[in-house]
Amino acid sequence: MSKNWPQKPPRTSAATAQAEESASARPGSSPRSAEDRLADLRVRLQEIADLGSASAVLGWDQATYMPAAGAPARGRQKSLLARLAHERATDAALGRLLDDLQPHAETLPADSDDACLIRVARKEFEDARKVPAEFVARRSEHGAASYDAWTRARPANDFRTMQPFLERSVELAREHAGYLGPCASVMDPLIDQHDEGMTAASVRALFDELRGALVPIAKTICEQPPADDTCLRGPFDEALQLEFSRLAIRAIGYDMDRGRLDKTHHPFCTKFGPADVRITTRVRLDDLGDAFFSCVHEAGHAMYEQGVAPELAGTPLGHGVSAGVHESQSRLWENIVGRSHGFWRYFYPALQRTFPQQLAAVSLDTFYRAINKVQRSLIRTDADEVTYNLHVMIRFDLEHDLFEGRLAVKDLPDAWRARMLADVGVAPEDDRDGCLQDVHWYGGWIGGVFQGYTLGNILAAQLYDTALARLPEIPAEIERGHFATLAGWLRENVYRHGAKHPPADLIERATGSPLQIAPYVGYLRTKYGALYALPPAA
Amino acid sequence: MSKNWPQKPPRTSAATAQAEESASARPGSSPRSAEDRLADLRVRLQEIADLGSASAVLGWDQATYMPAAGAPARGRQKSLLARLAHERATDAALGRLLDDLQPHAETLPADSDDACLIRVARKEFEDARKVPAEFVARRSEHGAASYDAWTRARPANDFRTMQPFLERSVELAREHAGYLGPCASVMDPLIDQHDEGMTAASVRALFDELRGALVPIAKTICEQPPADDTCLRGPFDEALQLEFSRLAIRAIGYDMDRGRLDKTHHPFCTKFGPADVRITTRVRLDDLGDAFFSCVHEAGHAMYEQGVAPELAGTPLGHGVSAGVHESQSRLWENIVGRSHGFWRYFYPALQRTFPQQLAAVSLDTFYRAINKVQRSLIRTDADEVTYNLHVMIRFDLEHDLFEGRLAVKDLPDAWRARMLADVGVAPEDDRDGCLQDVHWYGGWIGGVFQGYTLGNILAAQLYDTALARLPEIPAEIERGHFATLAGWLRENVYRHGAKHPPADLIERATGSPLQIAPYVGYLRTKYGALYALPPAA
Repeated sequence: MSKNWPQKPPRTSAATAQAEESASARPGSSPRSAEDRLADLRVRLQEIADLGSASAVLGWDQATYMPAAGAPARGRQKSLLARLAHERATDAALGRLLDDLQPHAETLPADSDDACLIRVARKEFEDARKVPAEFVARRSEHGAASYDAWTRARPANDFRTMQPFLERSVELAREHAGYLGPCASVMDPLIDQHDEGMTAASVRALFDELRGALVPIAKTICEQPPADDTCLRGPFDEALQLEFSRLAIRAIGYDMDRGRLDKTHHPFCTKFGPADVRITTRVRLDDLGDAFFSCVHEAGHAMYEQGVAPELAGTPLGHGVSAGVHESQSRLWENIVGRSHGFWRYFYPALQRTFPQQLAAVSLDTFYRAINKVQRSLIRTDADEVTYNLHVMIRFDLEHDLFEGRLAVKDLPDAWRARMLADVGVAPEDDRDGCLQDVHWYGGWIGGVFQGYTLGNILAAQLYDTALARLPEIPAEIERGHFATLAGWLRENVYRHGAKHPPADLIERATGSPLQIAPYVGYLRTKYGALYALPPAA
Repeated sequence: MSKNWPQKPPRTSAATAQAEESASARPGSSPRSAEDRLADLRVRLQEIADLGSASAVLGWDQATYMPAAGAPARGRQKSLLARLAHERATDAALGRLLDDLQPHAETLPADSDDACLIRVARKEFEDARKVPAEFVARRSEHGAASYDAWTRARPANDFRTMQPFLERSVELAREHAGYLGPCASVMDPLIDQHDEGMTAASVRALFDELRGALVPIAKTICEQPPADDTCLRGPFDEALQLEFSRLAIRAIGYDMDRGRLDKTHHPFCTKFGPADVRITTRVRLDDLGDAFFSCVHEAGHAMYEQGVAPELAGTPLGHGVSAGVHESQSRLWENIVGRSHGFWRYFYPALQRTFPQQLAAVSLDTFYRAINKVQRSLIRTDADEVTYNLHVMIRFDLEHDLFEGRLAVKDLPDAWRARMLADVGVAPEDDRDGCLQDVHWYGGWIGGVFQGYTLGNILAAQLYDTALARLPEIPAEIERGHFATLAGWLRENVYRHGAKHPPADLIERATGSPLQIAPYVGYLRTKYGALYALPPAA
């Protein structure tokens, strides 16, 4: 019955008086206690977090419900919120406050919440101060222009148009790395931003080891007759697909009273606060797996965020710690649990009841083979569990070669084809399905991003192995549709810590050992060994 | 496939560099041109508008899709955005800029965009500076506590609990009026905030005249047998109701490519930018009119906002000018058009096809009488077109008496009953359906708000009358489902001007005369004279 926008400029709010009080306390010449300073720090960090959350709401709306015509205003609004957050994140007064808190931090146990908060807040402050706003604006502009060109160049199979954009993106990534600090490889600081503690050398060593194990498995499987997945082709009613997905993600432990599921083009998970963590999916009528597994994948991300200890909320500790650890949770729930035989022993009858026409005559085993079909393919995002990492590692290695000067951008298409043929056993006929396929590079993001996908797969298996060693009842529980034991172990050992511990520490605390590929390779050999003949283990 | 929140503080954005550039130009000691200053003014105003829009997105989400658990974080985020907007709206540098622009404004035609912009921006700046942030915080806190108490007191029929809250609300409204400036009545500055140029005395005189005309009409109609509206009781499928509503609001001219319709508890219209103006509705399965007419009502508000000239966007001129003029557009489309016989001559066959089981055997005339049923009722929001204003005027007069000291809050329930009996001819048995019914007073908003509802009804008829005098083909077009002529006249004469002209000017420019009740009373007499015997016109 009313309209709902300010006809006058908003007059301020209850928060103002409080904030002004707190501000007036700041310049205080009288000595302030560490408690006062910590309270001040939390107010400042909460404000930065709230600006980020407000911007995330704007982004979620844009990706779900916003009319396309709203884009220009929305872009301006998000830019404004980003600028306000940046001003606060680089405020010299925040730096002084962190300096003043340092002596106090040194009196605290290193893994106490407050010590971790001061450590991480300082790192983020210092990182934010290193990169000039002018550079960020320049790169953001280039990224937008490059993305725009790519939306036309990819369908036109036109790599030559993108070559100068990509060359400039590599230059800008170098410049970015230069601001972040001296390092052995240009890629190191870029990787560190997403997967703290990893370097180009450590990732490359890990990936070389993994590739040695994966290539023979993939090759042997792909020489055998492929699984029949026609049972997934439908058509399957959209509303029923979403209803069944909701049933499953609630069952595994995504709290939908503190979240929701909406439709979008490119599925994502987003967080507006500890009690509002949402996921999105797309639905294809002719692919039963697409919406379902993307829902479970995003629910994995969301469960991680929902499980962070409430007392860390509103601080830089109040979310998942790294790209790799985050992806480990989406992959654990999507693949290790969601594509397991035990999971479907419980859920398949309900799925058959949802789609009786399409599935009543399809056996559990046929369905299980269909959702775990392995094949040589050209597109990373469509790849199965066995070949997926080969795609990721190709991108990482090519990035590395570009940054180290071993590869020129102009030679990328050929290098791509050669590596696809060597690792996956198939090469794209054109660049559209080759080196033009991923948005990352052409949105201006080259270096530091791709490794997280494979780190996630590796960590998922390592964490799951540990959970099973400590709680061997988990597989039998999954077959009965009970997920609380597994979810509880993950919450206790991963989720609740948020970003308190650096990723390597977190993994060592949770699993008793550093990151290692053996559990992941073992997982693949066991699972796919039951479906295909495999080469003997190295 | 990804998560979507900042793991690091946002690093700034393309906007930063530009804003910094513009900021560095500000202190400029060299003389700046009026164009430079105007550009600076627009940047500042756009930022205030963008913070308001961002907050509106957060509010829309809260009212439509947000999980209830998200409320505490959302409240904090909205408070933060309100504070940041307030800081900018009261920035002394904005005041200096407006001072510097004043000589330039005086060289411009008074009704040029720039002269109007400087005039309105100055008024808003001065108003915002008058009210201390401390007061706003205090009142906001009181409003929240009062609202919270009301949610329990109304179902419990407990006016005594609310009495001290309401007494305090009256005191705070007095204090607020005191900041805004000296005036004949305490209510004047409160009314002026929503309906610029009106005063308690001018509203009261207008309402006394209207009441004199309305009370005999309502009384005479209510003594006749009531219309039968059982055909509206359904049940009616929710999705079909929404689909039909969408059809109708698109037809009248709400551009859904620059807006959308979602479900909520309390329907509203909200604007995030010139190309994103949304409406919401609720749906009752047993009341066909509820969703439909609320959609048309909100679409009227939305068409006003969509019709504002693009060059006014992002400034204080870029939205509807007053509560009364805004309500005139929702009421014009909802009642004068949407409840007209001609409208349904076109749409009723489609409605019958949508709900054949319920409506195939119901004649257009029966349906038309049902949607225009007049009856004595207790609840304002459920009241029909004839009695609705009586409810509004009772509230306005009681507020006026409270502020002028002629009525004590403790005597409000009795005064309410007496006035209901005198004007509407029925009195509530308890306060739940009496003076406790409206959220406005108990949310802390007493004075300045209610008059807009009835001003809207009066203006709707005056504007429609003028449109018909100039374009007599409009009624025949409506019968053929063509609304562009009417919508075009309104856009040209009302919508496109945004808040450029004060409401009284706008009305005089559009209709050639000041606000007057004759067209509205004439409209009611003609429409209801065809349905009921009426008393002779005074």
